Amino acid sequence: MSAIDNLIEALQVLPGVGPKSAQRMALHLLLREREAGVTLANSLQVAMSEVRQCALCRNLTEHKICSVCRDPRRDATQLCVVESPADILAIEQAGGFRGYYFVLNGRLSPLDGVGPEQLGMDQLLDRIAQLQPQELIVATNPTVEGEATSHYIAQLVQGKVAEISRIAHGVPLGGELEYTDGGTLAHALQGRRSIA
Amino acid sequence: MSAIDNLIEALQVLPGVGPKSAQRMALHLLLREREAGVTLANSLQVAMSEVRQCALCRNLTEHKICSVCRDPRRDATQLCVVESPADILAIEQAGGFRGYYFVLNGRLSPLDGVGPEQLGMDQLLDRIAQLQPQELIVATNPTVEGEATSHYIAQLVQGKVAEISRIAHGVPLGGELEYTDGGTLAHALQGRRSIA
Repeated sequence: MSAIDNLIEALQVLPGVGPKSAQRMALHLLLREREAGVTLANSLQVAMSEVRQCALCRNLTEHKICSVCRDPRRDATQLCVVESPADILAIEQAGGFRGYYFVLNGRLSPLDGVGPEQLGMDQLLDRIAQLQPQELIVATNPTVEGEATSHYIAQLVQGKVAEISRIAHGVPLGGELEYTDGGTLAHALQGRRSIA
Repeated sequence: MSAIDNLIEALQVLPGVGPKSAQRMALHLLLREREAGVTLANSLQVAMSEVRQCALCRNLTEHKICSVCRDPRRDATQLCVVESPADILAIEQAGGFRGYYFVLNGRLSPLDGVGPEQLGMDQLLDRIAQLQPQELIVATNPTVEGEATSHYIAQLVQGKVAEISRIAHGVPLGGELEYTDGGTLAHALQGRRSIA
């Protein structure tokens, strides 16, 4: 196989990239973006060989301890549990949260062989014992598995953290009630807050 | 910047990839496809450093002469002129054409500084002199620039090749006349062929 065919095939490992877009990407790099292509190759090389799990929070990092866990200016009273590193990126980009994180890298799913061990529950208990946060915010996704995981964690850490909270479920900003599904609306009503 | 941030930024050089999909791609590779990520890095490295233009047809290849030009079983009576390497891939995948190619790597566009020199017209004349094809098929795109380029080439090679042809323009297979634009319909009628 030629170098170009190899590249077109290798690009198809990227999510959402089929044969046609892989071809377009390969030709774009070869005809117009050689230098950026070399940079991409190097970034990939470094990331694939050096990035691993943070020893404290299981987030992805190329260091032993990730930049959030190393930051002493974060708010040690709050620990936020999320399903994946992408959730941390989303929360950080949204701003507003200044506590620490813990990444499950999955959610409870016994049929897929994902139990408490795979989610690092021992590490979570260690982290809580070490950080002594006042509040544990469970920010797993509002799916069946995410809710089950949240329930499991709440039972596990009961008595070890003063407050255990769950992120709010409701109508998203800019959303319209008319087009919001029933489950979300029910949650939005149940979770209503006094405004006066 | 961290290795992950570097990777997310580098991925955005790919056409059609913004910050959000770059992030999704990076996490997908890091969490689930490490090996394929390394393969991709290597394929990129090789392609970026070794792929250049074929000395005969200007197609992309990692050899001095590309695999089509090196293949003696191709039909030397036909030479097909295309705008880009992607066009060769499309024609080869369609099948049916067994001749040789010549790649312009662009189209005439004086305002962008693309003249006959940039399109390798001297190399095209050399290739014709050497291959002595009976027919030159001009398969530039049916755009204003593509037509102008086609016209220019036809004048340039007149007398040097017995037959100079242009690919047919018309209603695409599976297309419907009702939804076909006027220019295409006019071409389809003009280019009609006797069927009985």
